[in-house]
Amino acid sequence: MSGPVTILGIDPALTCTGWGLLRADGNSYEALDFGTVAPPTQAPIAERLLRIHEALSDVIRAAHPDEVAVEDFIVGYVRAAVAVGEARAVALLAAAQAGLPVALYKPLEVKQFVTSYGRGGKDQVALMVQALLNLDEPPTPADAADALAVALCHALKRGSPMAAHSVFGTQHSELR
Amino acid sequence: MSGPVTILGIDPALTCTGWGLLRADGNSYEALDFGTVAPPTQAPIAERLLRIHEALSDVIRAAHPDEVAVEDFIVGYVRAAVAVGEARAVALLAAAQAGLPVALYKPLEVKQFVTSYGRGGKDQVALMVQALLNLDEPPTPADAADALAVALCHALKRGSPMAAHSVFGTQHSELR
Repeated sequence: MSGPVTILGIDPALTCTGWGLLRADGNSYEALDFGTVAPPTQAPIAERLLRIHEALSDVIRAAHPDEVAVEDFIVGYVRAAVAVGEARAVALLAAAQAGLPVALYKPLEVKQFVTSYGRGGKDQVALMVQALLNLDEPPTPADAADALAVALCHALKRGSPMAAHSVFGTQHSELR
Repeated sequence: MSGPVTILGIDPALTCTGWGLLRADGNSYEALDFGTVAPPTQAPIAERLLRIHEALSDVIRAAHPDEVAVEDFIVGYVRAAVAVGEARAVALLAAAQAGLPVALYKPLEVKQFVTSYGRGGKDQVALMVQALLNLDEPPTPADAADALAVALCHALKRGSPMAAHSVFGTQHSELR
Protein backbone atom coordinates (compact mmCIF):
# COMPACT_ATOMS: atom_id res chain seq x y z
CA MET A 1 0.00 0.00 0.00
CA SER A 2 1.14 3.54 -0.70
CA GLY A 3 1.14 6.62 1.51
CA PRO A 4 -1.66 9.16 1.87
CA VAL A 5 -3.08 10.58 -1.34
CA THR A 6 -5.53 13.34 -2.17
CA ILE A 7 -8.15 12.28 -4.71
CA LEU A 8 -10.41 14.65 -6.64
CA GLY A 9 -13.67 12.97 -7.65
CA ILE A 10 -15.73 14.58 -10.42
CA ASP A 11 -19.35 13.90 -11.47
CA PRO A 12 -19.54 15.79 -14.78
CA ALA A 13 -22.74 17.32 -16.17
CA LEU A 14 -23.41 20.49 -18.11
CA THR A 15 -26.21 21.53 -15.79
CA CYS A 16 -24.40 20.78 -12.54
CA THR A 17 -20.93 19.27 -12.15
CA GLY A 18 -20.11 17.89 -8.69
CA TRP A 19 -16.63 17.67 -7.22
CA GLY A 20 -15.25 16.22 -4.00
CA LEU A 21 -11.79 16.16 -2.45
CA LEU A 22 -10.86 13.06 -0.50
CA ARG A 23 -7.76 12.26 1.51
CA ALA A 24 -7.04 8.54 1.66
CA ASP A 25 -4.49 7.16 4.10
CA GLY A 26 -4.53 3.37 4.22
CA ASN A 27 -8.08 2.48 5.25
CA SER A 28 -8.80 5.97 6.56
CA TYR A 29 -10.74 8.41 4.40
CA GLU A 30 -11.41 12.08 5.02
CA ALA A 31 -13.51 14.54 3.02
CA LEU A 32 -11.44 17.69 2.62
CA ASP A 33 -13.93 19.73 0.61
CA PHE A 34 -16.72 19.36 -1.94
CA GLY A 35 -19.03 21.45 -4.04
CA THR A 36 -20.73 21.93 -7.40
CA VAL A 37 -20.48 24.13 -10.49
CA ALA A 38 -23.79 25.06 -12.08
CA PRO A 39 -23.37 27.55 -14.95
CA PRO A 40 -26.46 29.56 -15.98
CA THR A 41 -28.52 27.31 -18.24
CA GLN A 42 -29.31 30.27 -20.50
CA ALA A 43 -25.62 31.00 -21.17
CA PRO A 44 -24.06 29.92 -24.50
CA ILE A 45 -22.52 26.46 -24.43
CA ALA A 46 -18.97 27.80 -24.78
CA GLU A 47 -19.43 30.00 -21.72
CA ARG A 48 -20.90 27.15 -19.67
CA LEU A 49 -17.95 24.90 -20.52
CA LEU A 50 -15.58 27.72 -19.63
CA ARG A 51 -17.20 28.16 -16.20
CA ILE A 52 -16.97 24.44 -15.41
CA HIS A 53 -13.37 24.28 -16.61
CA GLU A 54 -12.37 27.35 -14.58
CA ALA A 55 -14.00 26.07 -11.40
CA LEU A 56 -12.36 22.63 -11.63
CA SER A 57 -9.00 24.20 -12.49
CA ASP A 58 -9.33 26.44 -9.43
CA VAL A 59 -9.98 23.41 -7.22
CA ILE A 60 -6.94 21.61 -8.67
CA ARG A 61 -4.70 24.63 -8.20
CA ALA A 62 -5.84 25.18 -4.62
CA ALA A 63 -5.88 21.57 -3.41
CA HIS A 64 -3.08 19.91 -5.41
CA PRO A 65 -4.77 16.49 -5.69
CA ASP A 66 -2.54 13.53 -6.54
CA GLU A 67 -5.10 11.72 -8.67
CA VAL A 68 -8.43 12.42 -10.34
CA ALA A 69 -11.41 10.06 -10.63
CA VAL A 70 -14.22 10.84 -13.09
CA GLU A 71 -17.61 9.19 -13.47
CA ASP A 72 -17.75 7.62 -16.92
CA PHE A 73 -21.20 7.61 -18.51
CA ILE A 74 -20.24 5.89 -21.71
CA VAL A 75 -22.51 3.04 -22.76
CA GLY A 76 -22.66 1.33 -26.14
CA TYR A 77 -24.78 3.21 -28.60
CA VAL A 78 -24.14 6.70 -27.27
CA ARG A 79 -20.38 6.30 -27.23
CA ALA A 80 -19.87 8.02 -30.59
CA ALA A 81 -22.07 10.95 -29.55
CA VAL A 82 -20.12 11.36 -26.32
CA ALA A 83 -16.87 11.43 -28.32
CA VAL A 84 -18.28 14.14 -30.58
CA GLY A 85 -19.26 16.16 -27.54
CA GLU A 86 -15.78 15.79 -26.11
CA ALA A 87 -14.01 17.02 -29.24
CA ARG A 88 -16.49 19.87 -29.68
CA ALA A 89 -16.06 20.91 -26.05
CA VAL A 90 -12.32 21.48 -26.26
CA ALA A 91 -12.80 23.47 -29.48
CA LEU A 92 -15.46 25.66 -27.87
CA LEU A 93 -13.38 25.98 -24.72
CA ALA A 94 -10.28 27.11 -26.63
CA ALA A 95 -12.38 29.82 -28.31
CA ALA A 96 -14.04 30.87 -25.06
CA GLN A 97 -10.71 31.08 -23.24
CA ALA A 98 -9.52 33.51 -25.92
CA GLY A 99 -12.71 35.56 -25.48
CA LEU A 100 -13.84 34.96 -29.07
CA PRO A 101 -17.45 34.89 -30.31
CA VAL A 102 -18.48 31.41 -31.43
CA ALA A 103 -20.98 30.40 -34.12
CA LEU A 104 -22.28 26.85 -34.52
CA TYR A 105 -23.40 25.45 -37.87
CA LYS A 106 -25.21 22.19 -38.40
CA PRO A 107 -23.90 19.85 -41.11
CA LEU A 108 -27.08 20.52 -43.13
CA GLU A 109 -26.39 24.25 -43.13
CA VAL A 110 -22.87 23.70 -44.41
CA LYS A 111 -24.16 21.26 -46.99
CA GLN A 112 -26.82 23.70 -48.18
CA PHE A 113 -24.13 26.30 -48.53
CA VAL A 114 -22.10 23.90 -50.66
CA THR A 115 -25.15 22.99 -52.74
CA SER A 116 -25.92 26.65 -53.37
CA TYR A 117 -22.64 26.75 -55.21
CA GLY A 118 -23.72 23.91 -57.46
CA ARG A 119 -21.51 21.24 -55.95
CA GLY A 120 -23.70 19.16 -53.64
CA GLY A 121 -22.24 16.12 -51.93
CA LYS A 122 -19.87 15.95 -49.00
CA ASP A 123 -17.05 14.57 -51.16
CA GLN A 124 -17.14 17.76 -53.21
CA VAL A 125 -16.46 20.08 -50.28
CA ALA A 126 -12.73 20.23 -50.96
CA LEU A 127 -13.31 21.19 -54.61
CA MET A 128 -15.79 23.90 -53.62
CA VAL A 129 -13.36 25.28 -51.07
CA GLN A 130 -10.59 25.20 -53.67
CA ALA A 131 -12.71 27.13 -56.18
CA LEU A 132 -14.00 29.78 -53.76
CA LEU A 133 -10.57 30.42 -52.30
CA ASN A 134 -8.65 30.22 -55.60
CA LEU A 135 -6.34 27.52 -54.27
CA ASP A 136 -3.96 25.68 -56.60
CA GLU A 137 -5.29 22.35 -55.36
CA PRO A 138 -8.03 21.07 -53.02
CA PRO A 139 -7.04 21.45 -49.36
CA THR A 140 -6.14 18.17 -47.68
CA PRO A 141 -6.86 16.27 -45.59
CA ALA A 142 -10.62 16.29 -45.90
CA ASP A 143 -11.09 17.40 -42.28
CA ALA A 144 -9.20 20.62 -43.00
CA ALA A 145 -11.33 21.22 -46.09
CA ASP A 146 -14.44 20.69 -43.95
CA ALA A 147 -13.16 23.25 -41.45
CA LEU A 148 -12.59 25.79 -44.22
CA ALA A 149 -16.14 25.11 -45.46
CA VAL A 150 -17.50 25.92 -42.00
CA ALA A 151 -15.49 29.15 -41.97
CA LEU A 152 -16.81 30.03 -45.44
CA CYS A 153 -20.36 29.26 -44.34
CA HIS A 154 -19.89 31.67 -41.46
CA ALA A 155 -18.31 34.33 -43.69
CA LEU A 156 -21.32 34.25 -46.01
CA LYS A 157 -23.93 34.17 -43.24
CA ARG A 158 -22.51 36.72 -40.86
CA GLY A 159 -23.71 39.64 -43.01
CA SER A 160 -27.33 38.48 -42.77
CA PRO A 161 -29.77 39.21 -39.90
CA MET A 162 -29.24 35.62 -38.71
CA ALA A 163 -25.56 36.27 -38.17
CA ALA A 164 -25.97 38.16 -34.93
CA HIS A 165 -27.79 35.13 -33.54
CA SER A 166 -24.97 32.78 -34.41
CA VAL A 167 -22.09 34.98 -33.42
CA PHE A 168 -23.39 35.71 -29.97
CA GLY A 169 -24.47 32.22 -29.17
CA THR A 170 -28.24 32.58 -29.00
CA GLN A 171 -28.61 30.31 -31.99
CA HIS A 172 -27.15 27.52 -29.95
CA SER A 173 -29.23 28.15 -26.88
CA GLU A 174 -32.25 27.64 -29.13
CA LEU A 175 -30.95 24.19 -29.86
CA ARG A 176 -30.89 23.05 -26.24
CA MET B 1 -21.27 45.24 -44.19
CA SER B 2 -18.31 45.23 -41.85
CA GLY B 3 -14.57 45.35 -42.55
CA PRO B 4 -12.27 42.39 -43.08
CA VAL B 5 -12.41 39.63 -40.49
CA THR B 6 -10.40 36.50 -39.82
CA ILE B 7 -12.57 33.44 -39.18
CA LEU B 8 -11.36 30.18 -37.66
CA GLY B 9 -13.46 27.23 -38.81
CA ILE B 10 -13.29 24.00 -36.78
CA ASP B 11 -14.54 20.50 -37.66
CA PRO B 12 -14.22 18.71 -34.31
CA ALA B 13 -13.59 14.98 -33.93
CA LEU B 14 -11.57 12.98 -31.44
CA THR B 15 -9.77 11.05 -34.18
CA CYS B 16 -8.99 14.04 -36.39
CA THR B 17 -10.02 17.64 -35.80
CA GLY B 18 -9.76 19.94 -38.82
CA TRP B 19 -9.19 23.69 -38.67
CA GLY B 20 -9.06 26.42 -41.31
CA LEU B 21 -8.29 30.13 -41.16
CA LEU B 22 -10.22 32.35 -43.55
CA ARG B 23 -9.92 36.06 -44.20
CA ALA B 24 -13.21 37.56 -45.40
CA ASP B 25 -13.29 41.06 -46.86
CA GLY B 26 -16.65 41.90 -48.37
CA ASN B 27 -17.19 39.25 -51.03
CA SER B 28 -13.53 38.31 -51.16
CA TYR B 29 -12.32 35.23 -49.27
CA GLU B 30 -8.78 34.04 -48.72
CA ALA B 31 -7.51 30.85 -47.03
CA LEU B 32 -4.73 31.92 -44.68
CA ASP B 33 -3.86 28.49 -43.30
CA PHE B 34 -5.42 25.13 -42.51
CA GLY B 35 -4.53 21.82 -40.96
CA THR B 36 -5.59 18.96 -38.69
CA VAL B 37 -4.91 17.60 -35.23
CA ALA B 38 -4.90 13.82 -34.94
CA PRO B 39 -3.83 12.61 -31.49
CA PRO B 40 -2.60 9.00 -31.21
CA THR B 41 -5.69 6.79 -31.01
CA GLN B 42 -4.01 4.64 -28.38
CA ALA B 43 -3.44 7.58 -26.02
CA PRO B 44 -5.74 8.01 -22.98
CA ILE B 45 -8.76 10.18 -23.64
CA ALA B 46 -7.53 12.99 -21.38
CA GLU B 47 -4.27 13.22 -23.32
CA ARG B 48 -6.07 13.24 -26.69
CA LEU B 49 -8.31 16.09 -25.55
CA LEU B 50 -5.27 17.95 -24.26
CA ARG B 51 -3.51 17.65 -27.63
CA ILE B 52 -6.54 18.95 -29.54
CA HIS B 53 -7.01 21.81 -27.09
CA GLU B 54 -3.34 22.79 -27.23
CA ALA B 55 -3.23 22.72 -31.04
CA LEU B 56 -6.36 24.88 -31.41
CA SER B 57 -5.14 27.28 -28.70
CA ASP B 58 -1.83 27.59 -30.57
CA VAL B 59 -3.67 28.46 -33.79
CA ILE B 60 -5.76 31.08 -31.96
CA ARG B 61 -2.71 32.63 -30.30
CA ALA B 62 -0.75 32.77 -33.57
CA ALA B 63 -3.51 33.94 -35.91
CA HIS B 64 -5.73 36.13 -33.69
CA PRO B 65 -9.01 35.23 -35.41
CA ASP B 66 -11.93 37.60 -34.87
CA GLU B 67 -14.59 34.89 -34.82
CA VAL B 68 -14.83 31.13 -34.55
CA ALA B 69 -17.24 28.83 -36.44
CA VAL B 70 -17.71 25.24 -35.29
CA GLU B 71 -19.54 22.39 -36.98
CA ASP B 72 -22.42 21.34 -34.76
CA PHE B 73 -23.26 17.64 -34.88
CA ILE B 74 -26.13 17.73 -32.47
CA VAL B 75 -29.27 15.95 -33.58
CA GLY B 76 -32.27 14.99 -31.47
CA TYR B 77 -31.73 11.75 -29.64
CA VAL B 78 -27.96 12.04 -29.17
CA ARG B 79 -28.12 15.56 -27.77
CA ALA B 80 -27.95 14.40 -24.15
CA ALA B 81 -24.98 12.14 -24.86
CA VAL B 82 -23.14 14.98 -26.57
CA ALA B 83 -23.75 17.17 -23.53
CA VAL B 84 -22.32 14.48 -21.25
CA GLY B 85 -19.26 14.26 -23.45
CA GLU B 86 -18.84 18.01 -23.30
CA ALA B 87 -18.93 18.20 -19.52
CA ARG B 88 -16.66 15.18 -19.18
CA ALA B 89 -14.18 16.67 -21.62
CA VAL B 90 -13.56 19.84 -19.66
CA ALA B 91 -13.16 17.79 -16.46
CA LEU B 92 -10.61 15.50 -18.13
CA LEU B 93 -8.90 18.48 -19.74
CA ALA B 94 -8.53 20.33 -16.44
CA ALA B 95 -6.88 17.23 -14.95
CA ALA B 96 -4.64 16.68 -17.97
CA GLN B 97 -3.53 20.32 -18.01
CA ALA B 98 -2.38 19.88 -14.41
CA GLY B 99 -0.50 16.72 -15.38
CA LEU B 100 -2.61 14.51 -13.10
CA PRO B 101 -3.37 10.81 -13.62
CA VAL B 102 -7.05 10.22 -14.37
CA ALA B 103 -9.21 7.19 -13.58
CA LEU B 104 -12.66 6.63 -15.07
CA TYR B 105 -15.39 4.70 -13.28
CA LYS B 106 -18.66 3.59 -14.78
CA PRO B 107 -21.83 4.29 -12.82
CA LEU B 108 -22.23 0.54 -12.26
CA GLU B 109 -18.81 0.33 -10.61
CA VAL B 110 -19.69 3.18 -8.26
CA LYS B 111 -23.04 1.59 -7.54
CA GLN B 112 -21.45 -1.78 -6.81
CA PHE B 113 -19.11 -0.05 -4.42
CA VAL B 114 -22.07 1.53 -2.67
CA THR B 115 -23.90 -1.79 -2.56
CA SER B 116 -20.88 -3.53 -1.04
CA TYR B 117 -21.40 -1.27 1.93
CA GLY B 118 -24.95 -2.45 2.29
CA ARG B 119 -26.65 0.67 1.03
CA GLY B 120 -27.68 0.06 -2.58
CA GLY B 121 -29.65 2.65 -4.47
CA LYS B 122 -28.47 5.93 -5.92
CA ASP B 123 -30.48 7.99 -3.46
CA GLN B 124 -28.45 6.43 -0.65
CA VAL B 125 -25.09 7.62 -1.95
CA ALA B 126 -25.07 10.71 0.24
CA LEU B 127 -25.74 8.63 3.37
CA MET B 128 -23.00 6.15 2.46
CA VAL B 129 -20.56 8.98 1.88
CA GLN B 130 -21.58 10.57 5.18
CA ALA B 131 -20.99 7.31 7.07
CA LEU B 132 -17.65 6.45 5.47
CA LEU B 133 -16.29 9.96 5.93
CA ASN B 134 -17.74 10.53 9.41
CA LEU B 135 -19.52 13.69 8.32
CA ASP B 136 -22.05 15.39 10.60
CA GLU B 137 -24.61 15.36 7.81
CA PRO B 138 -24.93 14.02 4.24
CA PRO B 139 -23.01 16.18 1.76
CA THR B 140 -25.24 18.34 -0.41
CA PRO B 141 -26.12 18.86 -3.18
CA ALA B 142 -26.41 15.31 -4.51
CA ASP B 143 -23.91 15.99 -7.32
CA ALA B 144 -21.21 16.74 -4.75
CA ALA B 145 -22.06 13.53 -2.86
CA ASP B 146 -21.79 11.61 -6.15
CA ALA B 147 -18.37 13.13 -6.76
CA LEU B 148 -17.19 12.08 -3.30
CA ALA B 149 -18.50 8.57 -3.99
CA VAL B 150 -16.39 8.42 -7.17
CA ALA B 151 -13.35 9.55 -5.18
CA LEU B 152 -14.07 6.88 -2.53
CA CYS B 153 -14.48 4.25 -5.23
CA HIS B 154 -11.06 5.20 -6.55
CA ALA B 155 -9.50 5.25 -3.09
CA LEU B 156 -10.70 1.67 -2.46
CA LYS B 157 -9.74 0.35 -5.89
CA ARG B 158 -6.35 1.96 -6.35
CA GLY B 159 -4.68 -0.55 -4.04
CA SER B 160 -5.81 -3.48 -6.18
CA PRO B 161 -4.08 -4.79 -9.35
CA MET B 162 -6.87 -3.12 -11.36
CA ALA B 163 -5.89 0.26 -10.05
CA ALA B 164 -2.84 0.64 -12.26
CA HIS B 165 -5.09 0.17 -15.25
CA SER B 166 -7.43 2.90 -14.20
CA VAL B 167 -4.86 5.40 -13.06
CA PHE B 168 -2.83 5.29 -16.22
CA GLY B 169 -5.73 5.39 -18.60
CA THR B 170 -5.53 1.96 -20.18
CA GLN B 171 -8.86 1.06 -18.68
CA HIS B 172 -10.47 3.75 -20.76
CA SER B 173 -8.72 2.87 -23.97
CA GLU B 174 -10.26 -0.58 -23.58
CA LEU B 175 -13.66 1.07 -23.68
CA ARG B 176 -13.17 2.74 -27.04
